[in-house]
Amino acid sequence: MKFYSYWRSSAAYRVRIALNLKGLTADYIPVNLAPDVSEQLSADYLMHNPEGRVPAIETDDGLLGQSMAILEWLEETHPTPSLLPDNAWQRAKCRAFANTIACDIHPLNNLSVLRKLKSEFGATEAQTTRWYHDWIARGFAPLEKAAAERESKFLFGEAPGLAELCLIPQMANGRRFGMELTEFPELCEVERLCFSQDAFVKARPENQPDAVA
Amino acid sequence: MKFYSYWRSSAAYRVRIALNLKGLTADYIPVNLAPDVSEQLSADYLMHNPEGRVPAIETDDGLLGQSMAILEWLEETHPTPSLLPDNAWQRAKCRAFANTIACDIHPLNNLSVLRKLKSEFGATEAQTTRWYHDWIARGFAPLEKAAAERESKFLFGEAPGLAELCLIPQMANGRRFGMELTEFPELCEVERLCFSQDAFVKARPENQPDAVA
Repeated sequence: MKFYSYWRSSAAYRVRIALNLKGLTADYIPVNLAPDVSEQLSADYLMHNPEGRVPAIETDDGLLGQSMAILEWLEETHPTPSLLPDNAWQRAKCRAFANTIACDIHPLNNLSVLRKLKSEFGATEAQTTRWYHDWIARGFAPLEKAAAERESKFLFGEAPGLAELCLIPQMANGRRFGMELTEFPELCEVERLCFSQDAFVKARPENQPDAVA
Repeated sequence: MKFYSYWRSSAAYRVRIALNLKGLTADYIPVNLAPDVSEQLSADYLMHNPEGRVPAIETDDGLLGQSMAILEWLEETHPTPSLLPDNAWQRAKCRAFANTIACDIHPLNNLSVLRKLKSEFGATEAQTTRWYHDWIARGFAPLEKAAAERESKFLFGEAPGLAELCLIPQMANGRRFGMELTEFPELCEVERLCFSQDAFVKARPENQPDAVA
């Protein structure tokens, strides 16, 4: 299996954690999303993935993009250890937690969006940073509440799963954009627990082969 | 089951189609998202759903938000007819198609985002419309390609499923914002096929109890 990734992509970070949790290996193929390179828009990469995004995986069946679809596929094809709770309602709550990040926060803070704010509206650095912080704050508020009400060690059980592997990369992104996240103590505690596990540590952006100091 | 919806919400539209396809009924509870009402931010609704969004469903187990999580839950608890292909890779491709809309298009064109473009950057009507069109065009381009390459009547089989129930509401939204979508003939053909089915027609915004002429 080939795995197209970029060290700083938080969606790729989700998949890296999942691969590690499930003990799977893949050929790491870096795609440089840095604005002055934009390798994801090269003719060569677009031939593989017309969406021009990472992450993506490639198997004998072809190419699959979209991190959340990749994660569900990993879960279906390599069910142990599971990324989802046993109970259907809890599975749904876990997916909803993950989707608050994947649908309500991350898409608004994507590089392509921040760039468009600058090109279309002449947004200043301070304005894009406020935009960034605001979407995280709005999305994290109900997630902090959910985390505070949890009855297990991790968000949806005694081990981390889909919810954590969306949360941790989003927290990393928030910090990168100068948020301290101290107003979300429960989420910070979950993060601390996650980083006691190798699967999360190894998946960190700075530990990837294409990381730039 | 209670179903919190708003006639114009395209994420709620997805769930309406799924409920219809699966022959399920739910108590339709309208939540008025119109900017001058914003019922989703009322204390009463926030007590139910701290995310302050629709759609949401409520069962004896509690409240569940996030349309994509609701759809997976409906699929797990009411598997027939299925919204997903039998084959794991095809299921993944179907979810990826749906997520291109749910993660890459819809979040950027949400009412709350358009409002923020106006309040933060003084975006004009023409600018928000261009913003809207651009994200649809970018997202739909690879989906049109996928649709053209399909080997079945619908996108991932002989019946509509998760891909169509994300696509059709997004197309409706695009038209509402003045896009003709003629540059996506395959997607238009899939839409035409969908509207030959009652499940899609009944789910249309204008056919909801809270629709305003």
